[in-house]
Amino acid sequence: MTRLGVDYGGTQTKLLLADDDGSSIRTHTVDTGDLSDLAHAVRDFVGTDDVAAFGVTVAGTLDPTTGVVGTSANLPWLDGTAPAADLSRRLGIPGVAVHDGEAAALAEARRGAGQGIDDVFVLALGTGIAGAHVLGGTPRRGAHGAAGEIGHVRVTDADYSCSCGGRGCLETVIGGSQLGVRWRERGGAGGTARDVVAAVASGDEAAIAVLSEAQDGLARALLEVVALVDPSRIVIGGGVARSAEVIVDPAVRRARERATFHILPDVVPAALGVWAGAHGAALACVAR
Amino acid sequence: MTRLGVDYGGTQTKLLLADDDGSSIRTHTVDTGDLSDLAHAVRDFVGTDDVAAFGVTVAGTLDPTTGVVGTSANLPWLDGTAPAADLSRRLGIPGVAVHDGEAAALAEARRGAGQGIDDVFVLALGTGIAGAHVLGGTPRRGAHGAAGEIGHVRVTDADYSCSCGGRGCLETVIGGSQLGVRWRERGGAGGTARDVVAAVASGDEAAIAVLSEAQDGLARALLEVVALVDPSRIVIGGGVARSAEVIVDPAVRRARERATFHILPDVVPAALGVWAGAHGAALACVAR
Repeated sequence: MTRLGVDYGGTQTKLLLADDDGSSIRTHTVDTGDLSDLAHAVRDFVGTDDVAAFGVTVAGTLDPTTGVVGTSANLPWLDGTAPAADLSRRLGIPGVAVHDGEAAALAEARRGAGQGIDDVFVLALGTGIAGAHVLGGTPRRGAHGAAGEIGHVRVTDADYSCSCGGRGCLETVIGGSQLGVRWRERGGAGGTARDVVAAVASGDEAAIAVLSEAQDGLARALLEVVALVDPSRIVIGGGVARSAEVIVDPAVRRARERATFHILPDVVPAALGVWAGAHGAALACVAR
Repeated sequence: MTRLGVDYGGTQTKLLLADDDGSSIRTHTVDTGDLSDLAHAVRDFVGTDDVAAFGVTVAGTLDPTTGVVGTSANLPWLDGTAPAADLSRRLGIPGVAVHDGEAAALAEARRGAGQGIDDVFVLALGTGIAGAHVLGGTPRRGAHGAAGEIGHVRVTDADYSCSCGGRGCLETVIGGSQLGVRWRERGGAGGTARDVVAAVASGDEAAIAVLSEAQDGLARALLEVVALVDPSRIVIGGGVARSAEVIVDPAVRRARERATFHILPDVVPAALGVWAGAHGAALACVAR
């Protein structure tokens, strides 16, 4: 019996079939459509394989008990619905919904860069910052589903407003689009994380200052994670981490330099890339 | 069968006998002496009771695997020794050593202000700041024994040096003796936390600023705990918390005002007072 992982993204949907022990058998990518389109795509992908269960990611807020989506910015037709129950009726297979960041963290911890380690903190540096503490192969949600929110650790006294309504959170100095905002504030052209990195390569002083602040912020947040959670390994992925030598590596070096009583564990890059979400969805559907 | 808890403090040692379900049967306090004195005191206290096991606290660094003390500032004769093994030989009863802060947290979580709650973060605000995340009745040590170190969350950019070698940690704005240092730096008389609190009561502006900074720091550290750990309850004890209305209550109010996505749980005062360590030592000796 196989399991199906569906990473239901804003523009593309990734499908992954995994065997009993969670290893990937085959994968496929389709353009994202509504749940009827998705059911068709899944049937085509699965063919005659016998699928025991599926997991589907939700990019947005999700009540883990009921499987009902609060709001999904990129898939607004899911708001207030229970996509796993809907898809389950269409496919005749049991399924669960899982938060996309949690799915990716689960996959990295169990089958990716955290494999074999019991106590892994996984960060995804993207437009937003996702974090999850995976203990014994299961993400620790916390009492109110908010554990692991490293993106909202406060790392600077600068008056940068954050998407959460707070000030000076890690996201404000390293979030994909926030890097561009910080650059523009310093007289730069603005743009994406990639634009800032390119400007650094051509010696732009403002962009260099922006990246230095991002490195500082990440170093500080990593030290807070070590002080409060003390994981065995830290795994860092996401788009902003792709040029590791520009942001992540210097940040980890700074964290090691500033560590006092802290014991900084191995900090390693994520291993599953863009397939982590689909892989985690496949793993999640048997984990419960 | 009963269990014995020994809280081996710098000047006084507290003894507590607990029954099978961990309830306290009777207690006694003696002046602290060496391990030979302690064995005599225990024999007098226990009398003809049948004790299954004991736990003894260590105020200092402790290797939890070997039970060997690294350094104990107040009981220097313990450095490099294994006090539980030594006491066990003298008494003919098996025993374990447990870090004093961990013992107090364990007791508060299981039998004090965290009773009945599965996921409790316990802080003790004293000269140093102890913190522990007690999950399912067991303190989560972390991968390197450093989890829960809320005293070394960085809460200010001010250049205050901390006992850990870092700068701007929570301890530097709220630790018992640090409150006096911060007051003296602002032109105050210096002294203990109690002196600062007394000066606030008489309208001293410098002392008021010091306490405000302490409240700010604690608010910020509580928000970091909520963001990363998301516990069901926070329990705050220790000497500096005794006048809760002066530091802790305003800090919790500030944290609630500044919370954005954070869900601040119940924050309650510790319930076991000075007996938490002895009670936790008695609980620890059957927990392993």
